[in-house]
Amino acid sequence: MTYLKQHKNYQPLNNKTLIDFINGNENLKKIINTKQKLKITEVGDGNLNLVFFADSKNKSICIKQPLPYVRVLKDWPLTLKRSFFENEYMKIHSAHVGHLIPKIYDYDENLCTISMEKLSPHIIMRQGMIKRIEYINFTDHITEYLSKTLFFTSDLYLKAKVKRKYNVVFADNIQLCKITEDLVFTEPYIVSVRNRWTKPYLNKIKNEIEKNTDLKIAVNRLKLLFLTKTQSLLHGDLHTGSIMCTAEDTKIIDPEFAFYGPMGFDIGALLANLLISFFSQDGHDVKKGDGEKYKMWIIKTINKVWNDFELKFLNLWKKNPTGDVFSSVFFNNQEEIYLEKERKIFLKNIFHDSIGFAAAKMIRRMFGFAHNIDLELIKDEKIRAECEKKCTSLAIKMMINAKEYNNIEALTEDALKFNISD
Amino acid sequence: MTYLKQHKNYQPLNNKTLIDFINGNENLKKIINTKQKLKITEVGDGNLNLVFFADSKNKSICIKQPLPYVRVLKDWPLTLKRSFFENEYMKIHSAHVGHLIPKIYDYDENLCTISMEKLSPHIIMRQGMIKRIEYINFTDHITEYLSKTLFFTSDLYLKAKVKRKYNVVFADNIQLCKITEDLVFTEPYIVSVRNRWTKPYLNKIKNEIEKNTDLKIAVNRLKLLFLTKTQSLLHGDLHTGSIMCTAEDTKIIDPEFAFYGPMGFDIGALLANLLISFFSQDGHDVKKGDGEKYKMWIIKTINKVWNDFELKFLNLWKKNPTGDVFSSVFFNNQEEIYLEKERKIFLKNIFHDSIGFAAAKMIRRMFGFAHNIDLELIKDEKIRAECEKKCTSLAIKMMINAKEYNNIEALTEDALKFNISD
Repeated sequence: MTYLKQHKNYQPLNNKTLIDFINGNENLKKIINTKQKLKITEVGDGNLNLVFFADSKNKSICIKQPLPYVRVLKDWPLTLKRSFFENEYMKIHSAHVGHLIPKIYDYDENLCTISMEKLSPHIIMRQGMIKRIEYINFTDHITEYLSKTLFFTSDLYLKAKVKRKYNVVFADNIQLCKITEDLVFTEPYIVSVRNRWTKPYLNKIKNEIEKNTDLKIAVNRLKLLFLTKTQSLLHGDLHTGSIMCTAEDTKIIDPEFAFYGPMGFDIGALLANLLISFFSQDGHDVKKGDGEKYKMWIIKTINKVWNDFELKFLNLWKKNPTGDVFSSVFFNNQEEIYLEKERKIFLKNIFHDSIGFAAAKMIRRMFGFAHNIDLELIKDEKIRAECEKKCTSLAIKMMINAKEYNNIEALTEDALKFNISD
Repeated sequence: MTYLKQHKNYQPLNNKTLIDFINGNENLKKIINTKQKLKITEVGDGNLNLVFFADSKNKSICIKQPLPYVRVLKDWPLTLKRSFFENEYMKIHSAHVGHLIPKIYDYDENLCTISMEKLSPHIIMRQGMIKRIEYINFTDHITEYLSKTLFFTSDLYLKAKVKRKYNVVFADNIQLCKITEDLVFTEPYIVSVRNRWTKPYLNKIKNEIEKNTDLKIAVNRLKLLFLTKTQSLLHGDLHTGSIMCTAEDTKIIDPEFAFYGPMGFDIGALLANLLISFFSQDGHDVKKGDGEKYKMWIIKTINKVWNDFELKFLNLWKKNPTGDVFSSVFFNNQEEIYLEKERKIFLKNIFHDSIGFAAAKMIRRMFGFAHNIDLELIKDEKIRAECEKKCTSLAIKMMINAKEYNNIEALTEDALKFNISD
C-alpha cells in the first residue's frame, strides 16, 4: 500500500505504545510529567482517526493519529498525509486565530500524530445544540475565525508569491478534496450505493432530486467553483462537529480537509449545519413547541454570523490592503468611496457562493453517505422525515436561487416559512 | 544565488560547449549526425533565454537554455526551473496538439536545456504580420490549439484527481506568474520606473489611465482572476511572438509561463496581439491606405478566431463529458438541451474574460516595460502615437465594458470605429 511506502515508520498507536511515544518525545515531556502514571483513553468517534487522551494528575494532552483507511469502511484507503495538512493549516492560521484553535505541542512525521491541548470541559457543538445550549459568545468567535482565516490567507492580504507558496503545499491534498467532491457534490444527486435517506418517507424527494435538472446544473456550478477557485486557505469541513464549545469558549478542530478553495465553502458549511440543527429541533421536542425559543436563537445566530462576518471581513480588508490586488499602490484616498463599493460587491458574491454551498452541505447530510446526529437521533422516522423534508425544500430553493437572496434575513425568513409549512 | 544551489551543474552554454553537450547526449545523437561538422549559431533575441541552432548538412536542431536572469536586465534574477515548466507543458499537451508545437528531442535537467525541432522556414508571426502576410491556415490551427489545450486540461475533461496533480506541478511556477502580475496587471496603471510609452504624445493618456478608477477596479478584478481561477493549463504568454508560421504551417513555442489559470487569459493574449497589429498597420503604410486589405484580413481573423474556438470547444465538450463536472453521471439524454444552454453560458463567461484580458495585454504593450515591434518599428513617433492612442481607447472601453460585448463582431466593429476616428 502506498501509505506504507511513504510512511515506513508509521504504525497505529495503542494505549501501550502511546505511553512509549510520549516518554520518548522531547516536546511532550515539556508539557506532561511522564514520571506520573498516565491514564490513556481512546475516544475517536469520527470516521477517520484515532484520538487518545493522556491524563496525568494535573495535565492532559490529546493525540490524534490518522488511520490509513476510513474507520467505518476499512476498504476505503486514505492517505496519512492528511495530518500533515492539518498541522500546516494550524501553523499558518495560529498567527491570527491561535486562541480559537487547540494549542499544538508536537507533530510527528513518522507516526503522523498531532499532539495538542486537550479541550475540557468542551463538548462538540452539534451535541450542545441538541441539548439546546445557547452559546453566548459563539457568533463573536466564529465570525472572528471566519473573517481572519479567510482574509489573511487571501490575495487581498498576502503578496501573490506567499499565497502561491501556500497553495503549492495544499494543492496536494487531493484525496481529501475528492471525498468532498464525491460525497457533497456528486452522490446525493445520482444513484449511488453509499447514499442513505429516511426510507420510505424521503423516496419521492430523493427521486425528484435526481430528476431536477436546474438543481443538478446548480450543484455542478458549485462543484466547478470548488475545483477551480483558489481564494483562501479553507478549513474544508467546518460543520458543528468540528467546533468544540463551553458556554463561553469556542475552539475549531479537525482541519485535515484544508485546501485553497472558495471562501463561501467554509461559510456555507457552517450556515448549513446551523440550518440543519434548526430544522431538527421539532424532532427533539418532548412537548410540542418546547424548542421554539432555541429555534429563534439559531435564527438570530445565523443572521448575526453572516452580518458580523461581513462587517469584520470588510474592516480587515479596509485596514490591511497589503495584498497584490485592490491594494494602495493602485488607489488614492479620494478613490476610497469606489473601493468601498467594490468590496461590497465582492462580499455579495461570497454571500451567494455561501448560500449555494450551504445548500449542498444540507442535501448531502440527508441523502448522502454521512449524516448528522441532529437528525439521526430523532428516533421516530416519520417525524425525522418531516424535519428533513422541510430542510430539503429550503436547500433546493437555496441552491437554485442563491443569487435572489439579497441579505441573510431573507434566507432565515425562508427557513421560518419552510419550517411551519406542511 | 538560489539557482546555483538548485542547479549545481548548470552553466550557460556557448558555441563550443554546446557541441560537447550534443556529442555526449544519447537522445540528440539519434537525431543529428555528430560525426559531421556542426554549425552553431546563437539566435536568442528574446528577453530571457539563449537559443542555439545546430545545423549539420541535412538535419538541424534548436536548443533553448534559460539564463538565471532577465537577459536585458541582469540584476533581475529569474529561476532556471522555467525550462522544467516549459517541458512539462509540452509533454502534457503533445498528446492532443503535438502537430502544433515543435518536436521535443531532449530535456536536460542539469543544463536546463530543451532540445527540439528547428522550425524552418518559419518566422515569428508578429514579423510576418508586419510584412502583411495572410496566413491562410492560421485560424484553423490556433483555434484547434486553443480549444484542445484549454479543454483537455480542464475539469470538464479531466478527472479532478488528475487535474489537481497537474496543478501541483505548475502551482510552483511562481516567479514567472509574478512577472505577469507586475508587468501586465500592475505597472501600466501606476507610476513605475520600468514603464515606457511614446513621449510626449501619450503623456496625457498615461496620466488618465492612472486616474481612471473604473479601469483600475477592472484590472484588479482581472488580476484576481489570474491569481485565483485554476481553469486550464495555460501557455501563459500566447502572443504573436510565441507563434511561428510559414504561409501554411503554424507552431506555438515558448510556454515557460505555463500555469493553471483562467482560459480567457490565453485567448485574450492572442486577441490583444491581433488587435495591436491591426492598429499598427497605418503606421507601416508606404502609401496611405495600402494596408486596408490586410487590416480587413486581421478583422476577419479575429472574428473567426473566437467563433471557431467557441464551436470547437463546445464540440469537444459535448463529445467528451468525461470530467467530474457536468458529466454524464449527472445528466441523461433528455437533459441535453439544458446542458447545451449551460455550455453556452460557460462560453459567454470565457468570452468576457477574454476581452478583459485582451485589454490588459494591449495596455501593457503601450505603457508597460515590454513593447511590441508592431508598434516600436514605426519610426515616426507622432504616427506611432496616433496608432497607440486608438488602440488604447479601445482597450480602455474593452476592459471597463467587457460584459457589454455580446459577440466578437461587436468588438471588431468597435476596432474599425476607433481606428478611423481622430
